[in-house]
Amino acid sequence: MLKVNPNLDKIEISVIRKIAEACREYEGGEKPLINLTIGEPDLPQPKIIIDETIGYMKDAKLGYPQLGGMIELREEIGRYYKEKYNLNIEPDEIIITVGSTEGLSTAIKTIIMPGDEVLTPLPVYPGYEPLITLAGAKLIKMDTSSDNFELTVDVLKKYVTPQTKAIILNYPSNPSGITISRKNRDEILKFVKENHLYIISDEVYSEIIFEGEHNSFLQDGYRENVILINGFSKSHSLTGWRIGYIIASKKMREYLVKVHQYAVTSASIISQKGALIALKECKDISSQVEIYKKRAESVYKKLKEKQISVIKPKGAIYIFVSLDGITKLNSLDFAKSLLEEERVAVVPGIAFGMDNYIRISLVKDEEILNEAIDRFINFVNKKDRE
Amino acid sequence: MLKVNPNLDKIEISVIRKIAEACREYEGGEKPLINLTIGEPDLPQPKIIIDETIGYMKDAKLGYPQLGGMIELREEIGRYYKEKYNLNIEPDEIIITVGSTEGLSTAIKTIIMPGDEVLTPLPVYPGYEPLITLAGAKLIKMDTSSDNFELTVDVLKKYVTPQTKAIILNYPSNPSGITISRKNRDEILKFVKENHLYIISDEVYSEIIFEGEHNSFLQDGYRENVILINGFSKSHSLTGWRIGYIIASKKMREYLVKVHQYAVTSASIISQKGALIALKECKDISSQVEIYKKRAESVYKKLKEKQISVIKPKGAIYIFVSLDGITKLNSLDFAKSLLEEERVAVVPGIAFGMDNYIRISLVKDEEILNEAIDRFINFVNKKDRE
Repeated sequence: MLKVNPNLDKIEISVIRKIAEACREYEGGEKPLINLTIGEPDLPQPKIIIDETIGYMKDAKLGYPQLGGMIELREEIGRYYKEKYNLNIEPDEIIITVGSTEGLSTAIKTIIMPGDEVLTPLPVYPGYEPLITLAGAKLIKMDTSSDNFELTVDVLKKYVTPQTKAIILNYPSNPSGITISRKNRDEILKFVKENHLYIISDEVYSEIIFEGEHNSFLQDGYRENVILINGFSKSHSLTGWRIGYIIASKKMREYLVKVHQYAVTSASIISQKGALIALKECKDISSQVEIYKKRAESVYKKLKEKQISVIKPKGAIYIFVSLDGITKLNSLDFAKSLLEEERVAVVPGIAFGMDNYIRISLVKDEEILNEAIDRFINFVNKKDRE
Repeated sequence: MLKVNPNLDKIEISVIRKIAEACREYEGGEKPLINLTIGEPDLPQPKIIIDETIGYMKDAKLGYPQLGGMIELREEIGRYYKEKYNLNIEPDEIIITVGSTEGLSTAIKTIIMPGDEVLTPLPVYPGYEPLITLAGAKLIKMDTSSDNFELTVDVLKKYVTPQTKAIILNYPSNPSGITISRKNRDEILKFVKENHLYIISDEVYSEIIFEGEHNSFLQDGYRENVILINGFSKSHSLTGWRIGYIIASKKMREYLVKVHQYAVTSASIISQKGALIALKECKDISSQVEIYKKRAESVYKKLKEKQISVIKPKGAIYIFVSLDGITKLNSLDFAKSLLEEERVAVVPGIAFGMDNYIRISLVKDEEILNEAIDRFINFVNKKDRE
């Protein structure tokens, strides 16, 4: 009998992994598999990042970076937030992390205690709940379907209790692609400040916006209440590099850096250099965003033409499709059946807490995505006739 | 008022950092500073690791690695343990981690619960206690001075209570350089198994052994009780790459991988490739070990000639020097004074829980180390006359 943290028994193997494993069976079959499960950009990593990182590796010592991350990278992030949001962020308000995952984990370990309640709107990225569970706290999922999955302060108020410590937000959202309006953001920030709560704002898709601008929760006047998480996996496809960052108030950062240091020491100095080059040389990713936008529009249009209910993504790299009126299967069985019959792999909505949806990742060429949607529609029609 | 995890207030900024900061004042002065504080190998990273990793970066996708780490690297680690220890370690008993720090952190988060007691022999590496404190548990430090700082089962028995969950061991030891005999290891393993305890064995210095062989706590018959932590920072100087690994039983690994995945997703794929090359192409690091050994012997001899009490290191990259009979200052004040008067920076023993010692890192050329010891002896003699 293992004597491990009992909270670990509450954490299940992810549904995404189950589908990914099921995928293997169908690889190399007659009908080619179209795998739209994983949230990993297919667009290549900018060549200049690889080239200049290689140059750095030839010359530099590649020793321990400074505590909290390479100073040049923290300064460059500060410059970027000045330019984009007109915010003054100092290097001692930034920690360079092992991807946004470590940022999230560090933030949660720093502020969440056993018994705390943490709120998050549905649908929810499946990486949050295990971290909250491990901290001995509870993730409460807020139903935002009446507001098109955008959180409003009125919905938020309904869920706040004396146990509420923090709210985790993720706009643009994985899986819905929903963004947040300036008005809703401002009202939420005001409420959170008045009620001495924290927002952990996972803005890892901040650079992939299809209309309007990104409304970051990092705002003057509310800096004490917000821990921002971001990274380079989605904006620059640097998934395998594991590089991201936290921005927080100076005081909060003093606590965060303790957790970070003893958890990982630092992110790889090679990856830190890559991120520095990404910010210096590849700030403009509009052509990549244009590609995701065209894919999203094309898939959205195709589904709408068939009267399939679907959320129009305003950012990120996914499209969240409703199964209402399409099937009586739950989302996992639907996804398994779609995979088996049409060789199209998607993530069942249950992974995000919504069993009447599926998530399609927009990480293939438009042509392949269209082929996948044709197969999907074919599958739905066939089921309809059965 | 920040509402953070109250355990964080118990974690202090490390003494090593305090001394490192004090060092800055003396950089570039007339008398050159000799900084022997940090445990970062000065020996260069093998060129072949850098060259082949660069080749890989030019060709590979650098996307998300497999859950738990690159399969080729896990297989290669298995082969290494077969060759070196005649152990059969499967890939699903290994997790590739963000340096040994993440390995430790993941192991502790997996098995340690609030109220648990964790034992460790003095002197103790300062990275352990903060992780135990954060987990809400207590680190109990065992006095092993009567056995020359090598843990025996008799000493261990004195400290075990019903609350004891695990023992953290670190042989070869940072800071003492002490190793563990086969007899003591076997007796400890037997006791731990009988009493259903865990050993977290931090063997990051396993490759740097000056006499005899390394007695790993990873042993058939005791696999269920041991979580082994290792890494490439000390053996191959890959500090900035942040790459290490955990070996545990299959069942335990299922729990560890959950904690690992949600904490960091994975180690950088670039660093994983570097580690694979290290194991494939640079397994034999005997010439590097010879250098550390010569430095250790030279410093040891010089100190002994002056009747200074010092532990003879049998491995690792440090020498732990007693202040008994040398000074009435505590170790921090002694270190500060040595820095101020002789421009030699060492780590006060209090950082390792022993205030009557200082730690000297053997990470400079022998000549520079000898110069540092001359200054140290000069300082001690001067104080003696004052």
